Amino acid sequence: MNKTGRLYGLGVGPGDPELLTVKALRILRAAPVVAYLSAKAKKSNALSIVESYLDPRQIMMPLIYPVTTEKLAPPQCYETIIADFYDAAANEIARHLDVGTDVAVLCEGDPFFYGSFMYLHDRLSTRYPTDVVPGVCSIVASSAALSAPLVYRNQTLTVLSGVSPEEDLEARLAQADAAAIMKLGSNFEKVRRVLVKLGLADRALYVERATMAAQRIVPFAEIDPASVPYFSMILVPGARWQG
Amino acid sequence: MNKTGRLYGLGVGPGDPELLTVKALRILRAAPVVAYLSAKAKKSNALSIVESYLDPRQIMMPLIYPVTTEKLAPPQCYETIIADFYDAAANEIARHLDVGTDVAVLCEGDPFFYGSFMYLHDRLSTRYPTDVVPGVCSIVASSAALSAPLVYRNQTLTVLSGVSPEEDLEARLAQADAAAIMKLGSNFEKVRRVLVKLGLADRALYVERATMAAQRIVPFAEIDPASVPYFSMILVPGARWQG
Repeated sequence: MNKTGRLYGLGVGPGDPELLTVKALRILRAAPVVAYLSAKAKKSNALSIVESYLDPRQIMMPLIYPVTTEKLAPPQCYETIIADFYDAAANEIARHLDVGTDVAVLCEGDPFFYGSFMYLHDRLSTRYPTDVVPGVCSIVASSAALSAPLVYRNQTLTVLSGVSPEEDLEARLAQADAAAIMKLGSNFEKVRRVLVKLGLADRALYVERATMAAQRIVPFAEIDPASVPYFSMILVPGARWQG
Repeated sequence: MNKTGRLYGLGVGPGDPELLTVKALRILRAAPVVAYLSAKAKKSNALSIVESYLDPRQIMMPLIYPVTTEKLAPPQCYETIIADFYDAAANEIARHLDVGTDVAVLCEGDPFFYGSFMYLHDRLSTRYPTDVVPGVCSIVASSAALSAPLVYRNQTLTVLSGVSPEEDLEARLAQADAAAIMKLGSNFEKVRRVLVKLGLADRALYVERATMAAQRIVPFAEIDPASVPYFSMILVPGARWQG
């Protein structure tokens, strides 16, 4: 039986191409096939990050989501459509692995930290040798961009999705020593309401597209909710410990 | 007035020298002075990680903790001793910055994620131009080492220190979708008791020194508490979402 190819989940970091690790760069450059997930008619962020490192001889494999956040008319169901899509994407990758070709899947930030690679990993890693190269995740990138130490000593860090229901956000943030809130976009007003209610607005810091060329830092009180992109982050750093 | 030097907090990642970022490597190689915090009579982990990248012409600046975890006889006080130590370390770094020399401080993992660099940053960043280069933190490194996707979709991640009191750990873990518990060492038995009580032991994964040469993965039920080092991690991954 022929040897199969190896599947790589490559964390390419938060945005700055220099924040790839030495390991991810080595594997990326050696990969005959480079796959990436992407929304329809949008350029993949992960691809933009690594573009300058690629060689024209590498095979590019865009995996285009059939739906993203638009409303679907019944009987269409987001969960079914997306599961079918990941099945098909995994099969497309498997065709290369089956003939002994390695495939590197690009993952913004870290592959296992809210990454879509997890759905490919769960479908393929039991059948093919698989390596995951961890990456710099958006939380620490945001903390560095904001010059804001995030968690001191024995503090607890709570990482939340802005998609969560308001009462859930409130309950969790009320208990948090330090917090990071991801996936803002249209959820921003809800998140801000909770932070104001809990008296945390003065500690909250905001950054868009941390470490990317378009990085933007805005004082929390001055943010126009309509302008908030998905790739934005609120940090509530832990209380300073003097050391 | 002469230009001062620039202070860099360099995240050097979790252990594998290849998990430095391209940016951290570039700044490290160009730094005339390389500082690192270290326990007495122990080799610095951060230094070990970057050793192969250093040039003998670079000035090494070890900053040796006067105390670590030993019991102190009164009137000695850990908080005072350690604050005085960080003051002195900051002054030692400042002497180079004052004469226009850049100083890179090595930080295991990420500088602002439970990193001791934070105490130097808080003392120096208002007086000198300071850049923080984010790094791959131990949580995502452990998740990759364990081949365990950590947080799916809109799950909450709770990052805890094993030093926390048992009832606090229990309250927070009872609410967590996914969790990472750091700083185990002598706290391991307490943490395991909580996980067993909450019915989470079956989901718990354990790794020591993730991505280092001495990395060790042990099934959670088989761990000898006496063998657990400080650089170990328990992950409780979020429930799998099929995507």
